[in-house]
Amino acid sequence: MRRRLVRQITGFSNETVKRVRSLRDKKHRRREGLFLAEGLRILTEARAAGALPEILFFAPEGAGHPLARGLIAETEAAGGDVIETNADILSKLSGKENPQTLVGVYRDRLTPLAAIDRTRSGIWIVAQALRDPGNLGTILRTSDAVGGGGLILVDDCVDPFSVEAVRASMGALFTQTIAAARWEEFVAWLRQGPAQLVGTSLRTDTDYQATRYQAPTFILVGNEAQGLPAPYENQCDLLVKMPMRGKADSLNAAIATAVMAYEVLNQRRPR
Amino acid sequence: MRRRLVRQITGFSNETVKRVRSLRDKKHRRREGLFLAEGLRILTEARAAGALPEILFFAPEGAGHPLARGLIAETEAAGGDVIETNADILSKLSGKENPQTLVGVYRDRLTPLAAIDRTRSGIWIVAQALRDPGNLGTILRTSDAVGGGGLILVDDCVDPFSVEAVRASMGALFTQTIAAARWEEFVAWLRQGPAQLVGTSLRTDTDYQATRYQAPTFILVGNEAQGLPAPYENQCDLLVKMPMRGKADSLNAAIATAVMAYEVLNQRRPR
Repeated sequence: MRRRLVRQITGFSNETVKRVRSLRDKKHRRREGLFLAEGLRILTEARAAGALPEILFFAPEGAGHPLARGLIAETEAAGGDVIETNADILSKLSGKENPQTLVGVYRDRLTPLAAIDRTRSGIWIVAQALRDPGNLGTILRTSDAVGGGGLILVDDCVDPFSVEAVRASMGALFTQTIAAARWEEFVAWLRQGPAQLVGTSLRTDTDYQATRYQAPTFILVGNEAQGLPAPYENQCDLLVKMPMRGKADSLNAAIATAVMAYEVLNQRRPR
Repeated sequence: MRRRLVRQITGFSNETVKRVRSLRDKKHRRREGLFLAEGLRILTEARAAGALPEILFFAPEGAGHPLARGLIAETEAAGGDVIETNADILSKLSGKENPQTLVGVYRDRLTPLAAIDRTRSGIWIVAQALRDPGNLGTILRTSDAVGGGGLILVDDCVDPFSVEAVRASMGALFTQTIAAARWEEFVAWLRQGPAQLVGTSLRTDTDYQATRYQAPTFILVGNEAQGLPAPYENQCDLLVKMPMRGKADSLNAAIATAVMAYEVLNQRRPR
């Protein structure tokens, strides 16, 4: 009979609990190279994408679901640390009053630019100085939905492995390639191969539906408050704008990215 | 010389500060019929839409901007309570560490269904049991951008006047009509006039670009986790789906709404 590897932890002062709890801070995530993901749905997406947690916490009430049982068994089989705990501890780990019944700790997964095969997809997203973790996660989720390759983070973006970003990505964090680079590094890499860099801008008259995008299309989205810096816009192959019929002059960054990404996808799919 | 109406408050225990601070709770917002909005940009949008605050807090460092001076002067002229304060108080009011230098208290503005002129716009959004204030605010912002008429909240939605929703709306809260109704009330009202009710669903094969939408189009978006209840889908004139090319089977609710809304707008604008 196989030895039961699951251990029980119900104390707040336990070292593993403290260590995992600290992963809610970027500083600790960076140092450990680990991050948190919560909930059966996201952990199942991760597993489908080939990622198992290094540590898996579960509450007994969450272990009944067949998908949860599979996740627990596979994590054990892969040598992961499987820990049975309670709702209080899970709440402490996730920072939520009503925590999910599963919390996983994963190895972070930034891909070096040089390792990206850009021909793998016709759509890539590039975000510059994106500040909101919800926007970042939502952009990953949208990129997955349009069959995009991934997200390249330029300049000082919010951490893609923050609890909020992981949550908003709904698991797309595990299916999408994620890279981070300085702008100059990114441009140098971009120009080594086929690429159309498209920025959304208020400083153009080109309608976003008045052009045929060339693959691979890199959709460049700027900071939520400032938009793209002018020198960055100047590096784009094309600037386009979306129609704005209201009082305001801009869209939420994740919304603008999605409207653009669906236009690119729509141009390429059969009708 | 006109009497200077501005008063100074720098104490946390001040009754007005306590009362305004309490507006971060839905219960108090409901009771008072008031809500908070922060920041020069949003308050300026509000003013452009004809809404002045009943109470306006400002920090001296925020009062230098011409738009802020105009806002202060107009609020005074309209008989509003204009209060000079400091960053600590503003931080307490807004719940943010780095608060905006302006915080306004506004009369809430739900419109009864019966008072809505649906022919005023060709696009309306209907949200069912929407839970995330960021999604709600973002949907308002998108509705403004596509020239939509407003947002009708059905069932138990998050409060559109929460601080987070107001923030995410970027002022669209003041330009968009907002109504709330039970589903039966909404459907009864809807069928009294021209309307195409369109739901996004996984339970259809109709592509969202394979149909010509009829004005006024009511885009129905469901709860973030559950989507639309089947009986609600059955009441739709049309169910459509967006292409999903990734691992996941759904988009963020605000993203799906935006992709749909831009499709409807795009069908109707000149090329």
